[in-house]
Amino acid sequence: MALTRPNPRFLTRTNRIFTSQIRTYAAPGEGTIPPAKKKYVPTSGTYPLGFKAGSAHVGVKPSNTRFDDLALIASDTPCAGAAVFTTNKFQAAPVTVSRDMLKRRKGDGIRAVVVNSGCANAVTGRGGVEDAIAMGQETDKCFAPGSNDQEGSRSIVMSTGVIGQRLPIQKIASKIPTAYANLGDTHDHWLATARAICTTDTFPKLLSRTFRLPSSEQEYRVAGMTKGAGMIHPNMATLLGIICTDAPIAAHPLHQALTSAITKSFNSISIDGDTSTNDTVAMLANGAAGGAPITSTSAPDFPAFQTVLTEFAIDLAKLVIRDGEGATKFVTIRITNAASYTDAHRVASTIARSPLVKTALYGKDANWGRILCATGYAEGVDSVVPEETSVSFLPTDGSPELKLLVRGEPEQVDEQRAASILEHENLEIVVRLSEREGAEAVFWTCDFSHEYVTINGDYRT
Amino acid sequence: MALTRPNPRFLTRTNRIFTSQIRTYAAPGEGTIPPAKKKYVPTSGTYPLGFKAGSAHVGVKPSNTRFDDLALIASDTPCAGAAVFTTNKFQAAPVTVSRDMLKRRKGDGIRAVVVNSGCANAVTGRGGVEDAIAMGQETDKCFAPGSNDQEGSRSIVMSTGVIGQRLPIQKIASKIPTAYANLGDTHDHWLATARAICTTDTFPKLLSRTFRLPSSEQEYRVAGMTKGAGMIHPNMATLLGIICTDAPIAAHPLHQALTSAITKSFNSISIDGDTSTNDTVAMLANGAAGGAPITSTSAPDFPAFQTVLTEFAIDLAKLVIRDGEGATKFVTIRITNAASYTDAHRVASTIARSPLVKTALYGKDANWGRILCATGYAEGVDSVVPEETSVSFLPTDGSPELKLLVRGEPEQVDEQRAASILEHENLEIVVRLSEREGAEAVFWTCDFSHEYVTINGDYRT
Repeated sequence: MALTRPNPRFLTRTNRIFTSQIRTYAAPGEGTIPPAKKKYVPTSGTYPLGFKAGSAHVGVKPSNTRFDDLALIASDTPCAGAAVFTTNKFQAAPVTVSRDMLKRRKGDGIRAVVVNSGCANAVTGRGGVEDAIAMGQETDKCFAPGSNDQEGSRSIVMSTGVIGQRLPIQKIASKIPTAYANLGDTHDHWLATARAICTTDTFPKLLSRTFRLPSSEQEYRVAGMTKGAGMIHPNMATLLGIICTDAPIAAHPLHQALTSAITKSFNSISIDGDTSTNDTVAMLANGAAGGAPITSTSAPDFPAFQTVLTEFAIDLAKLVIRDGEGATKFVTIRITNAASYTDAHRVASTIARSPLVKTALYGKDANWGRILCATGYAEGVDSVVPEETSVSFLPTDGSPELKLLVRGEPEQVDEQRAASILEHENLEIVVRLSEREGAEAVFWTCDFSHEYVTINGDYRT
Repeated sequence: MALTRPNPRFLTRTNRIFTSQIRTYAAPGEGTIPPAKKKYVPTSGTYPLGFKAGSAHVGVKPSNTRFDDLALIASDTPCAGAAVFTTNKFQAAPVTVSRDMLKRRKGDGIRAVVVNSGCANAVTGRGGVEDAIAMGQETDKCFAPGSNDQEGSRSIVMSTGVIGQRLPIQKIASKIPTAYANLGDTHDHWLATARAICTTDTFPKLLSRTFRLPSSEQEYRVAGMTKGAGMIHPNMATLLGIICTDAPIAAHPLHQALTSAITKSFNSISIDGDTSTNDTVAMLANGAAGGAPITSTSAPDFPAFQTVLTEFAIDLAKLVIRDGEGATKFVTIRITNAASYTDAHRVASTIARSPLVKTALYGKDANWGRILCATGYAEGVDSVVPEETSVSFLPTDGSPELKLLVRGEPEQVDEQRAASILEHENLEIVVRLSEREGAEAVFWTCDFSHEYVTINGDYRT
């Protein structure tokens, strides 16, 4: 099941499927990472103190006989936990179970995040909820054998994969101790764990960094992993993220910081505009590095922590776009001088979701008309004034912006320069909604290609 | 520029472009209609009394040296007029000019609709507005030479084509008398006119029928033409529609009836979810057939007229989907037992716009997970309850529905039957939001194919 061996079925459909875009629709791949993506996979990292990561092979999908599909991230001590969940009405069992657990514990005393890939445990009724609860309980047992905690589980549960099928919960439960036994704090442990949560991702998504907060010289660490919007039969896209830090922050301010960071990161990316039933980003903070605790959002270090977390979450979220199905472009959409952040975010999101904009980018077409069109039909935005709107491309090579529309008037575009800007993988589109200072929102997206259609339309035929 | 000669550039991109899908991005085509589409083009019709249609060749696009690109639909006498316009903030000059005219005249005393293809007169500033006014005035002159009506124009103006470019208004103005001279009431006149408003459409879209109203034995006629969401560089999709009837209905009830009909027809179709700057559907009613006038929405014949018009507009709107770019499927989405029509319409629209649903349909994949997922993230809908939701395919061959999900529980799907249902061009998806009686909304859409990407992404490269 090597990723580099193209399925001949794809090739009969179109001759433009690159080997790098071939994806298996099974369990996490072995990791033959496409050459163009290798630069996104770290070869080392600095991981938060007091956290360990590990994985194990379950074979959630019977066809997966080799690759780890169970991941465990654990804190050495009970710690603060928070999570942001999908807004989809059809919420998977692990989403409801994890939300209830965090609510019951008020985000305190959390020990672990346990994740299986290969089955989403979504649309599985009461039995699915019992499976998700059992998965959490089996994880708890590793930390406190024989205990029967009255407050219930201390583990956040996540699942990603096929929907409408029950988890093979006995198999999973029997391998949770193996994942626990495999826990470690090296880069290789973190990378293997990041790989175990993948589904159709072409590369594991892992980041780590250090930071300081204003009130001390203490060094802190934050690490995170995510998986992208890969499709699995019969399926939905699922985005998962797990972030850990050894900074000392209590559950309530952690929740506030995470919610705000997600708005500007995981809620500011779009591959195809679909929102899955399982989307979850969770965060653990164990304070293992010491230093002055952040106990509320009015603590002096809170704003700096908020900034660090937001930037980290943005970088993590961008990796999902780097692995967008069929994507050939990485596009930053910046809306400036808006009446409000909400307006700017809605316009950015509308442009990022427009199939006409996305196919034009794929076709390397400097099609400002489609960008303008999407700007004009963004729902719930009253502040767009055609005569004040400007559209530019910002090249990533540092050369000056290419103005396409200035205050509602089309520019004479240097088509050769436009074409050369669009040859690059990276592009920034800037839409100024007025000439006055105002709010700014940034969104990241990719293009719509033949490969997207092939990946999402053809693989069952 | 025959439609049947493929551009070799397309073919290097993918080997799956069928000749029937090759579109010229120029003026209206000569009409080598793809064989599969011929059944949608009428060979005869019954047209409303007192209306005439005509066309002329302008060469709005210099590359168009042969095909009529100016259309005129005129009433023999001043009549009631109404129109529904795009909600896009970037409204093209003909949209603002026509809206102002109808407002000024309160929808009375209208004589004509004049349309050019090849240039949208959008994002053209003050000069563009002057061009649109001039286009209306030139049309007025045909009906009353030398007059200088204090209330201004009596003509609804529409443009479709390239945006950001000024109209060649002198050329257009000089050919309006030719279109007027070419006016006639035969089927051939109507069909030629329907063709002149086309851009990348692969067939002209024209319908006509007769109807009666409860209060008399009088026979009335309604005819209409539309053009689809074809793309033109640098461009936006534009949808135009023109409906004429010889029934006697005053401007105010006409406006009400049209607005309501559009909600269930042209606002219930989606090819790619983009909303253009030029979208306009206009209607004229001249009462030439006689009978009891409908002077208000409380007139006894109004409800029947409303029903006739809604059904007619639905059939006209469906033709746009039949010509969806790259489409291989015609999909009806029926949402039933909803808490409100608005909820049902929003859910239907969200499913119709989901790239994951649309690529699955293209791939003939009975992917209820994606349908459910879109149902769950429909914005502004609070009434979706997972445990009450059911999803089925309704085959068009009259065989029983294929249940995919029943009250939130996945069915064991007969994959062979699902595959055979999905082999057909037509498909109906039914989503029941509850087991209780409730509101119903119907939406029509098509799939997302490789051809869609090719048409919208590749043609400039």
